[in-house]
Amino acid sequence: MKSSATAQEVARLAQVSQSAVSRTFTPGASVSEDTRNRVLAAAKTLGYRPNALARSLITRRSRIIALVMSYLQNQFYPLVIEKLSQSLQKQGYHVLMFISDLEETDGVLAEILQYQVDGIVMASAMLSPDLARQCAESGVPVVLFNRVPDISAFARHSTSSVTSDNHRGGRMVAELLLARGHRRIAFLAGLEKSSTNLERERGFHEVLEAAGVAVFRRAVGHYSFELAKEATRELFAGPDLPDAVFVANDHMAIAAMDVLRQELGLRVPEDVSVVGFDDVPQASWGAYRLTTVVQSVEDMVEATVELLHEQMREGTHPRNVVIPCRVVERDSVRAAG
Amino acid sequence: MKSSATAQEVARLAQVSQSAVSRTFTPGASVSEDTRNRVLAAAKTLGYRPNALARSLITRRSRIIALVMSYLQNQFYPLVIEKLSQSLQKQGYHVLMFISDLEETDGVLAEILQYQVDGIVMASAMLSPDLARQCAESGVPVVLFNRVPDISAFARHSTSSVTSDNHRGGRMVAELLLARGHRRIAFLAGLEKSSTNLERERGFHEVLEAAGVAVFRRAVGHYSFELAKEATRELFAGPDLPDAVFVANDHMAIAAMDVLRQELGLRVPEDVSVVGFDDVPQASWGAYRLTTVVQSVEDMVEATVELLHEQMREGTHPRNVVIPCRVVERDSVRAAG
Repeated sequence: MKSSATAQEVARLAQVSQSAVSRTFTPGASVSEDTRNRVLAAAKTLGYRPNALARSLITRRSRIIALVMSYLQNQFYPLVIEKLSQSLQKQGYHVLMFISDLEETDGVLAEILQYQVDGIVMASAMLSPDLARQCAESGVPVVLFNRVPDISAFARHSTSSVTSDNHRGGRMVAELLLARGHRRIAFLAGLEKSSTNLERERGFHEVLEAAGVAVFRRAVGHYSFELAKEATRELFAGPDLPDAVFVANDHMAIAAMDVLRQELGLRVPEDVSVVGFDDVPQASWGAYRLTTVVQSVEDMVEATVELLHEQMREGTHPRNVVIPCRVVERDSVRAAG
Repeated sequence: MKSSATAQEVARLAQVSQSAVSRTFTPGASVSEDTRNRVLAAAKTLGYRPNALARSLITRRSRIIALVMSYLQNQFYPLVIEKLSQSLQKQGYHVLMFISDLEETDGVLAEILQYQVDGIVMASAMLSPDLARQCAESGVPVVLFNRVPDISAFARHSTSSVTSDNHRGGRMVAELLLARGHRRIAFLAGLEKSSTNLERERGFHEVLEAAGVAVFRRAVGHYSFELAKEATRELFAGPDLPDAVFVANDHMAIAAMDVLRQELGLRVPEDVSVVGFDDVPQASWGAYRLTTVVQSVEDMVEATVELLHEQMREGTHPRNVVIPCRVVERDSVRAAG
């Protein structure tokens, strides 16, 4: 992960206040020649890029970034907290946690705004488009993490987002399973209205359809471990079984593998191939060795921090950043026959 | 988890400001008879316990509780973030994250204090006693989570803590393994100087010693997944193998099971029994079904929040709360032979 020097570090090295660093890089602001020279020398030594930060140093109120999440069971999200906290800390910001129930998102924004946060990162597939819009309307920079804005024109033009290329990832999974000779391919969906699920499924469908292969069976796990177990039982009921399953994230794919092996006595990948999405650390654990699509938390976090800084400056337009993803093959998909 | 009504909820029901709620419960503060009656009625309806909170409403500065953690890879810690955030949110507080490197804890306190936090929760086995002492000296309430204070007299008398009964837990593991006929029992240690490791190992040793059984072999995994794999290879090198391993936490126990089964071709529990500590969600996953000692995150978080409130009032003494723990048996320890 790239790290750039902070204004604090420049101030420390130059032995001046942070405000002096800020003034040095603000057109028209007052600063003595001596201070200015020391700041510029320190900035040069440390490779400090002033433009993005100088403005935010003046306008920022709290050095707090709110992070809104609905659930941490999926091991992807703790990684996001860790990486985002570390990245923001280096720039003198800290993450304030807001855990939001699925049903109870309305009160969250009022709470967040009481803290006069400098930005909001909404990192959950499960937050309502309403809340996303409220945040945007409040005038505080908002970055949606791992989800795209509501399809309404308003949200599209007012909110930045960072996702991985879920659509392309879904395509890659279908291509892999077809290449391995699978023709009875099931899909285990996450939250059906989430953009992650919609995009992954759309890409997956496109490739199967182009190959003249129908989705063999479909069930919904709502990104929950327990519901994914139920959905797996549903997919594998009846005499005709799928020979492969694409599961919309790793968290559910692990639940699916447990049911396939422990309850149904099926071997992975000999009897059925399984592919997930995310590449959480647990996907590489020896008992699962799950083939999956890598979403780079590091790249996604880096883009998020960049977007926050961008939005703190006036006159910038929201952007939707899409991070490329790739398949990592382990042992849960059969070799080419 | 118990939840009590918050001043916010009382204010909402009584249709008055939070300040009016606070004044109602502050001896000598001015409040109209009508307001006072409405607040008392609402407080009664909601079961609001005013004494603990009324003082903190007046003295609190930021409604922020700093949470210091070193690493989130161990799945126990994301649970702590989630439960602690949820519990504090109900009382109008939020958690500000501080991720601290093992080597770099010195700067953290200065950063924390810039935010004028109302309390600090240090939730990591890996923070230095020095930092713990600095926090206590700053006058901001500090609760150590999952670790006990430094053995120095100063820290013992100035810092509250919440741990599970690690010593008793270690005893229970030894009792279980002895009862199943194991006599060649190895120990895979975590961070050797952490109180969690020291206490778990001490209890484990006591029981083995009383039974006249020596620890068969010992290696150190430093609570790291990768280092625990190394330590497992070390424990199982040579012609004479352990027939059971107590691993100081689940995170490392899962790494150990991966090595035992995938690399060494050993069966769990037929060839070797494995016991962990924590009961993280992953311990119950079908591929591991790990027998372990349950640390109740809910109970530990509840005690932490209580201690924070206690310390916010003046004149209270630090307390060290110890939460009972218990063994949950799954499939990683052999049945009595």
